[in-house]
Amino acid sequence: MEYNLARRMQFLKASEVRELLKLTERPEILSFAGGLPAPELFPTQELAEHSVALLKEMGAKALQYAATEGYTPLRVWIRERLNTRWGMNVDLDNLLILSGSQSGLDLIAKLFLNDGDTVWCESPTYMAALSAFRVCGAQFQAMDCDDDGVLLEGLEDKLRAHPPKFVYVITNFQNPSGRTWSMERRQTFMELMTRYEIPVVEDNAYYEVAFDPLEYCSLARFDPKGLVLSLGSFSKVLCPGLRVAWVSAHEDLINRLVILKQSTDLQTATFNQMLVHRYLANIDFDARIKLICDTYRERRDAVLQEFEQHAPAGVHFTHPRGGMFIWMDLPEYMDSHQLFNRCLSHCVAFVPGTSFHPVDPKRNTLRFNFSNLPPATIRHGARVLCNSIREEMEAAGR
Amino acid sequence: MEYNLARRMQFLKASEVRELLKLTERPEILSFAGGLPAPELFPTQELAEHSVALLKEMGAKALQYAATEGYTPLRVWIRERLNTRWGMNVDLDNLLILSGSQSGLDLIAKLFLNDGDTVWCESPTYMAALSAFRVCGAQFQAMDCDDDGVLLEGLEDKLRAHPPKFVYVITNFQNPSGRTWSMERRQTFMELMTRYEIPVVEDNAYYEVAFDPLEYCSLARFDPKGLVLSLGSFSKVLCPGLRVAWVSAHEDLINRLVILKQSTDLQTATFNQMLVHRYLANIDFDARIKLICDTYRERRDAVLQEFEQHAPAGVHFTHPRGGMFIWMDLPEYMDSHQLFNRCLSHCVAFVPGTSFHPVDPKRNTLRFNFSNLPPATIRHGARVLCNSIREEMEAAGR
Repeated sequence: MEYNLARRMQFLKASEVRELLKLTERPEILSFAGGLPAPELFPTQELAEHSVALLKEMGAKALQYAATEGYTPLRVWIRERLNTRWGMNVDLDNLLILSGSQSGLDLIAKLFLNDGDTVWCESPTYMAALSAFRVCGAQFQAMDCDDDGVLLEGLEDKLRAHPPKFVYVITNFQNPSGRTWSMERRQTFMELMTRYEIPVVEDNAYYEVAFDPLEYCSLARFDPKGLVLSLGSFSKVLCPGLRVAWVSAHEDLINRLVILKQSTDLQTATFNQMLVHRYLANIDFDARIKLICDTYRERRDAVLQEFEQHAPAGVHFTHPRGGMFIWMDLPEYMDSHQLFNRCLSHCVAFVPGTSFHPVDPKRNTLRFNFSNLPPATIRHGARVLCNSIREEMEAAGR
Repeated sequence: MEYNLARRMQFLKASEVRELLKLTERPEILSFAGGLPAPELFPTQELAEHSVALLKEMGAKALQYAATEGYTPLRVWIRERLNTRWGMNVDLDNLLILSGSQSGLDLIAKLFLNDGDTVWCESPTYMAALSAFRVCGAQFQAMDCDDDGVLLEGLEDKLRAHPPKFVYVITNFQNPSGRTWSMERRQTFMELMTRYEIPVVEDNAYYEVAFDPLEYCSLARFDPKGLVLSLGSFSKVLCPGLRVAWVSAHEDLINRLVILKQSTDLQTATFNQMLVHRYLANIDFDARIKLICDTYRERRDAVLQEFEQHAPAGVHFTHPRGGMFIWMDLPEYMDSHQLFNRCLSHCVAFVPGTSFHPVDPKRNTLRFNFSNLPPATIRHGARVLCNSIREEMEAAGR
């Protein structure tokens, strides 16, 4: 049977990374390929206790249909956090609860994109955002980056030549590159966006996972015209398996996103929203963030020490100040897919960087996750990677 | 600030019904407007116990990222149920877990629809399906119905004149009409769809809520070519606040839907899938279904008795054999929005039927829900509605 599908289905393929991840699922493989938070940090016992208390206290209300906008006490908690720690100034009307921040990317794509519209994003960028935008017909323009964020030179000319419907950026501890924008870069970038009135989608899934005292803020701080849509998530600071996240934006945009959410998934699970809120209302959230950051900082240090000692000359890697990922640029001639196979034969896996490029995939790049395994294992994995790179160099006669 | 939004946003408005529902939220209003299952039937205590046991047994796994396809043991449970009770013949590759069946409508719209494509549906039909399809640019053609389902006369000519990308139907205890297709109608309809190779989206959210011994089956039973996509849900038989549902379809379609789900919401909440499965694995599901059906049957009987006694001549109402809704056709001259206001002044609410029509909204129709209040209250509400209709007739001088 030949099905007559939508045109978009020609451009959407099973994620190459997902196929690779299947190879890394064998028990003998140490995988630094995925993006899993450390499960030992999930508040498993506390969530069990709160589940019972919640169902006792709220009864069937916790299991019934509820408003699309989301559970008000949870929105109140998020408002306080954003206004005190993210440099934002939001009210309840600026907040919509999401079923994971991926679903925010889907709703935003529906809000802005007609078939063929242009979206700008960093190169590399979060690949599942590219997929969400592609579903609504996005074409991409890439913005080059250095270690301080997006490169501003020539950006205004490019804006005139290829005006975007919106720009998508991850300013803090980016997945996949681990990069963080400098405050100066943020401000100057937002001046340009404000002048041209271009909506900016800021994906802040990693914002709280900061290894140094937080000197950053949301781009919304530099947004006099209400152009910034800012996504946040509990997946990295609580757990991903409850699928609770949020988007904050100008009230007019939130109203439209609510309409789109009604037709997309009606609402985020009532029980999950209430459970997350009940847990947050009863803990010292800053202490929890500190625990997560301390754990991941130690792991980042472990991999960086190994890379610094063992990475061959000609290899460049980022020094993330937060988040879960390090990005590596290999010598131009090297193919990270070949390296992947070699590394896998030594029972270690990473993700080749190709899929993270919105245009012109670079085959000599890779992403290495450091959140999901203990430091000693990470050291071993990092050393195997460095050795594999050396073997590839030798095989290439370099 | 004037935002440059997608064209689809011109056609998407806040649901009229949602606005009406806000009016019905005052505590003195008895509302038969919504579509809420009876909360006293939710297994609140059992789910509390299973939450604790699940987190103890599965630990952090229940809170981690998981496969887009869904939790395998839950898919196994659904497979068994569909194959033994729904007249289907599915395997795991035919099943994808959804974050509520609304999200299945969204994924199916993305799978099939280009801007301007035609979708056929019953008139009236589930309004949030219309919204989901509109987001992807659907145009609608309505199929007229009688008490045995869709009217087949002239359908083939219409197929040639306005070929649909897919047809959307609710064959059992339809929301909003309460109608159920006869077996003969199902079979003849599917013969036509098979001849023209037209995909059929069957929304079976109410399938298990059957008041008579179940003599029905999924349209998939009459589907030699793999054209039927069948949606099912735990919202009506367990609770809606966990947002767990499924779609079954040909493996080739499921593979595509998985790709779309990756970019839409990554996955349905791990915890929720495992909780639903753990609960189902430990109860007598048929006994639970019997409890729900016994409760709703009694409520349907209550409203039907009142309507039969008190509805003025010229009013037609359906006799649902399952589900949660009764549909009423008022005399042609009557405006259900005006009737709504009159009824509301007597502290009783329903939903005008206009929004449920894909084309040519009929203002002389309404939907009355009977699942959410006890029989005595339902009787009172039904009587108030009948009296209000009489008052409207008198006001119109009839």
